[in-house]
Amino acid sequence: MEEERRKDIELANLNASEKIPFEELLSEKELKISQKFFEFVKRRLNVINWLPKYDQTQAIGDFIAGVTIGLTMIPQSLAYANLANVPAVYGLYSAFAGSIIYTLMGTVREVSIGPTSLMSIITVSYTYEKPIEYVFIMTFVCGCVEMIMGILRLGFLVDFISIPVVSAFSTSTAILIIVAQLKNLFGLNFSGKSLPAIILKLGENIKYLRVGDAMLGICAIMFLLFMKYLNDIKAKVSNPILKRSLFYLSLAKNALAVVITTSIAYALAKNPDIEIPFKLSEKVPQGIPSFKLPPFTAMDGNRTIEFTEIASDIGSGFILLPMVSILANVAIAKAFSSGKIVDATQEMIALGMCNVLGSFFQSMPTAGAFTRSALSNVSGVQTPFAGIYSAIIALLALTLLTPYFNFIPKATLAAILICAVYTLIDFSIAPKLWEKSKLDFLSWSGCIIACMVAGVEAGLLVGILLSILNIFIKAARPNLLIYVEKTKDHQHIYVRPSSGIFFPGIDNLREQINIALVKTEFKFPITLDLIKISSIDYSSLKGLESIVKDLKKFNLLVKFINVDEKIQRRLNFN
Amino acid sequence: MEEERRKDIELANLNASEKIPFEELLSEKELKISQKFFEFVKRRLNVINWLPKYDQTQAIGDFIAGVTIGLTMIPQSLAYANLANVPAVYGLYSAFAGSIIYTLMGTVREVSIGPTSLMSIITVSYTYEKPIEYVFIMTFVCGCVEMIMGILRLGFLVDFISIPVVSAFSTSTAILIIVAQLKNLFGLNFSGKSLPAIILKLGENIKYLRVGDAMLGICAIMFLLFMKYLNDIKAKVSNPILKRSLFYLSLAKNALAVVITTSIAYALAKNPDIEIPFKLSEKVPQGIPSFKLPPFTAMDGNRTIEFTEIASDIGSGFILLPMVSILANVAIAKAFSSGKIVDATQEMIALGMCNVLGSFFQSMPTAGAFTRSALSNVSGVQTPFAGIYSAIIALLALTLLTPYFNFIPKATLAAILICAVYTLIDFSIAPKLWEKSKLDFLSWSGCIIACMVAGVEAGLLVGILLSILNIFIKAARPNLLIYVEKTKDHQHIYVRPSSGIFFPGIDNLREQINIALVKTEFKFPITLDLIKISSIDYSSLKGLESIVKDLKKFNLLVKFINVDEKIQRRLNFN
Repeated sequence: MEEERRKDIELANLNASEKIPFEELLSEKELKISQKFFEFVKRRLNVINWLPKYDQTQAIGDFIAGVTIGLTMIPQSLAYANLANVPAVYGLYSAFAGSIIYTLMGTVREVSIGPTSLMSIITVSYTYEKPIEYVFIMTFVCGCVEMIMGILRLGFLVDFISIPVVSAFSTSTAILIIVAQLKNLFGLNFSGKSLPAIILKLGENIKYLRVGDAMLGICAIMFLLFMKYLNDIKAKVSNPILKRSLFYLSLAKNALAVVITTSIAYALAKNPDIEIPFKLSEKVPQGIPSFKLPPFTAMDGNRTIEFTEIASDIGSGFILLPMVSILANVAIAKAFSSGKIVDATQEMIALGMCNVLGSFFQSMPTAGAFTRSALSNVSGVQTPFAGIYSAIIALLALTLLTPYFNFIPKATLAAILICAVYTLIDFSIAPKLWEKSKLDFLSWSGCIIACMVAGVEAGLLVGILLSILNIFIKAARPNLLIYVEKTKDHQHIYVRPSSGIFFPGIDNLREQINIALVKTEFKFPITLDLIKISSIDYSSLKGLESIVKDLKKFNLLVKFINVDEKIQRRLNFN
Repeated sequence: MEEERRKDIELANLNASEKIPFEELLSEKELKISQKFFEFVKRRLNVINWLPKYDQTQAIGDFIAGVTIGLTMIPQSLAYANLANVPAVYGLYSAFAGSIIYTLMGTVREVSIGPTSLMSIITVSYTYEKPIEYVFIMTFVCGCVEMIMGILRLGFLVDFISIPVVSAFSTSTAILIIVAQLKNLFGLNFSGKSLPAIILKLGENIKYLRVGDAMLGICAIMFLLFMKYLNDIKAKVSNPILKRSLFYLSLAKNALAVVITTSIAYALAKNPDIEIPFKLSEKVPQGIPSFKLPPFTAMDGNRTIEFTEIASDIGSGFILLPMVSILANVAIAKAFSSGKIVDATQEMIALGMCNVLGSFFQSMPTAGAFTRSALSNVSGVQTPFAGIYSAIIALLALTLLTPYFNFIPKATLAAILICAVYTLIDFSIAPKLWEKSKLDFLSWSGCIIACMVAGVEAGLLVGILLSILNIFIKAARPNLLIYVEKTKDHQHIYVRPSSGIFFPGIDNLREQINIALVKTEFKFPITLDLIKISSIDYSSLKGLESIVKDLKKFNLLVKFINVDEKIQRRLNFN
C-alpha cells in the first residue's frame, strides 16, 4: 500500500505555534478518600455548596422570586392537575414536593420544578380512565429512571430528540391541549383521547353547550390576553413605576383570573336562590399531603390491579416521560446557564429525587417548567432557596385556601391552560426545515401527524424513530465524491467518502468503486481520500482490504491519502 | 461570521488537472417507452439475456457443473431437511424448485439456490414442534418480503449486519448444529432448543446411547474427514489424472457416504433375521412435488390454526430470515463477481421468486449456498443454465431413488451436517476485534452468548442491535480534537469535531466548547474546524448558531474554517 500524508495548513503550522492539549490546562488536584467522599456528598446535596455563604442580598432576591413563582404556580398547578385528569389538589402537592426537594439538590437556581403541561399531557395519555394510583406509580418509576439515567450517565439519550421533533411535539401537544380544554371551556362532558375522537365528540356534544361556562371561559381568555397585551406594551412605557406595576399585573394574571371568577362563584353560592351557571371544581381535602409509600397496586372497582399489570399498561411511558422531563430540564439549564458548566448528572439525579420523593407526597410526574423558570430569572432569583418560598406558598394554599378551591370555575382553569400553551404552536419552522433539510421536515411532519392521530406518546416515538432513521441512512449511504482526474502525466479515479465509513456504508463504497472500474474498463488506479474519516470499525477495515484485493486482480493500485493517524495504525495490508 | 477556505492540495490542483464527473462517462441512451418495457422484462427475466447466445462450449461447462452440484445437493438437502425437522423429501423439493426458478431469473451464474444449514437452523428456531405448514408459510412470506425488499431497494438493510455479527452468528449456528446433531449421531431421541437445554438433555439421555448408530456415525465422520484430507493433499500431487480423480472423489464424498451406508442398511434389511442396528430415515412419497397454493392455515390435532396466529408465532422470523438469505446471496455475489456489477435488486427479486414459487412446491426456505456456489465455480459453470441440470438430478432422485430413501441411516446425515459446518467455527476473529475495536468485540461476544443462551434468532437480533448501538454512540459523542493554540500574535481555542455532527452530537459540542471557555476564563476566541464535516442537519445548524450567540455574550468570535460548500450555503448568522 502506498500512503501519503497531506501537508496541510494545520501540520505546517505545527512548528510555528504551540499547541496545549486541553487536559494540561485543567490539572485536577489529587484528593484523599475522605475528601473524595465529601466532594461526592457536596455534589449530590448541592445545598451544602451555597447555603453557608447565603447572605441578605441573596435572601431578598430569593424571597421576591420565590413568592412570585409560588403565586404563579398555584393556578397553574390546579390547571395542570385538571389536564392530567386528577383532582386539583394533587397539582399543589406536586408543586410543594418538587420545590422543596429541588432546593436541596438542584444546581440551576432558575429551575422551578412542578407540574407542567407537557408532563400532564403525557401522563394522561398513559393513565387515561385508569385509577389514580397509576399516576403516583408513574411518578415513582419515572423518578427512578431519571436517577438511573443520571447515575449511568445516560443523559445523552435525550440528545436523540432533535429540534424538529421537539418543535413538532410541543406544537402538537399545545393543539391537543387547546382542543381538549374546549370541552371544559364550554361546560361539556365527554371523553376522548386522539384529536379526531375529541373533535368528533365535540361536534356531537356542541348542542349541550352551557352558555354560563362558555361566557365565563371566553371572558377569562379575553382578560388573560389583555393582561398579556399590557405586558407587551410595557416596553413602550417610560414611567418606571407604571412599568413595574404593569409587570406585576401581568405576572399575577392567572392568579387574578382565578380569584375574580372564584369570588363570583362564591358570592353566587351564598345566595341559595341562584343556581351557579357554570361548573365548579371538585371539593379537595385540606392540609399538607401525608408522607407515605406510593401505592404499588391499584383498585379498579373490586379488582386489585397488580404492579406488573400496571407496568405493562404504562410500558413505554416509563422511558418517554423521563426523557421528556430531562429534555425540559436540559433546555432550561441551557437557556440560563451560558457561561456556567451544568452538572447534567446531578440535574438528572435531582429531578429523579423530586419524583421519587414526590411520589411519597402523592405527586404527579414533575419537571422543570420553562415559563416559570424564565419568570424566576426576571424576578432576580439568586439561589435555589427561592424554591422554599414557593413551597411555603403552596403549603399556605393547601392549608388556608382549600375550602375555596371547589368554587374555582372549571372554565377559568381551561382558559388559563389555553392561554399558557397557545404560544407553543409554531408552524413557522416548517418552511425552514423544508429548505434546509428534507429529512428533518419528514421527522417534523411525521411527529405532528402521529401526535394528532395516535396521541402524543406515539407521536414522540414516531418523531424519534424518523430522526434516527436519518442517521441510519447517512451511515448506510454516505455521499461519495467520485470523478476521473486527468493530469499531464497521470490519470486516476478520485474517490472521497463523506463522513465516517461504518459497516453499513462500506459495502456501498466497494460497490461504487467496482462500478467506476467497470465503466472505465479497468484503466485507472484509484485514489481514496480519507480526509473526512476519523474513525473506522472492523467491518470497514476489512472492506478497505477487500477493495485493495479487488484491484490487485486487475493489477491496479489503491492510493490512500489523508489518512488519520489512528486509522493508519489499524490499516495493514499484506 | 468569519470564514476561510483552506487552499488544500485538491483545490490547488484544480487548474492543473481536468476533473470529469462520473456521470459524464456514463451517458445513458434515451429509450422509448416500448424499449423501456422490453428493458424491464429483460432485467427481470434475465434468462432472455444469455439464452439466445447460448453455445456448445457453455453447454458443456454447465452440464458438468450442474450435474456436480446436483449430486452434492441431494445428500445435503436430505441432511438440511433433517436439521429443519421436516421429512427429508422436502429438502429435495426445495432443491428442485430453487434450481429451476433461479435459472430463469438469476444473474450470478455461480449461485446455487436450495436448502442451506443457515436457513434450516433459523427456520427450525421458529417452527420447532409446530405443524409442517408453518415451514411452507415461512417460505412463502419470506419470499414476498425478499421481493418487496428488492422492489423498494431495501437491500441496504442487510448492510446493518456487520462482519463481527456475521462471524459470531455462523460460529454459533455451527456449534448449535453440531451439538444438536450429536443426538442423531448417537441414536438418541429427545428435543431441546437452546444450547443449555440440549446439553442437559444430552447428559440425561447419554445412557440410552445406541452403539450401532454411534459406530456408524463416527465411521462416517472419519470417512468424510479422510476424503477432505485427500482433497487437501491434492495440491501436492503432480500426476494430473490422479489430481483430477482426487478432486472428484472429494466432491462425491457426501454422496459416497450416503450410498455406502444406505447399501449396508438395504443389505441388512433383506435378511429378516437381523435387526438393523441403527436408525433409518422416514419413508418418503415418490414423485415430483405437486404444484398447489401454499396452505394458509395449519392443523394442530383437531384445531385449525389461523394465519394470523401463525404470523404472530413467527413474528420477527419474517424479517430475520429474508435478511439472512439476502445476506448469503450478497456474500456469494461479492465473492464471485469482482469486476462485474451485481444487480442487487434483481438478485433479491429472483431469490424472492424462488421462495414464493417454491412454497407452491412445498419447499423449505431457500437461499444461495456458499459451499455449492464455490463448487460450481471450480466446476467451470458458464451460465445459470447449470441449475436446470441440478434440478433434473433432484427430480431423478425424487422419482427413482425414493424407495431407497428410507434406508438412509440418520447417523450418516448427522455426520454429513457436522462435517459441513465445523469449518464455520472461527474464534480467531476475537483477538483481532479486541485489538482493533472494542465495540465490535462487544457485538461479536454479545451475539455469540445470546445465540447460545436464547437461540439463533435472538442472537442475531442482539448482534445487530449492539452494532447499531456503536453507530449511535459515534453519532452522539463524536470525538473532539480541542486544544489552545498560541502563535506569536494570536491565541485561540482550536476545536475539530471528528465525523459528522448530527443532532445527537451537537449539544455535546456546544457543552465542550462552553467548558473550554469557562476553564480558560473566556480569554480566547474559538476556531471551529469543520474539515471532517460534510453534511449537517437542522438541529446542528441551530446548534452552531447557538455557539456563535453564546460567544457573542462574552465578545468573543467563532471562526469557522474548512467549511464544506454545501454547508456554507445553509449557515447564516444574523
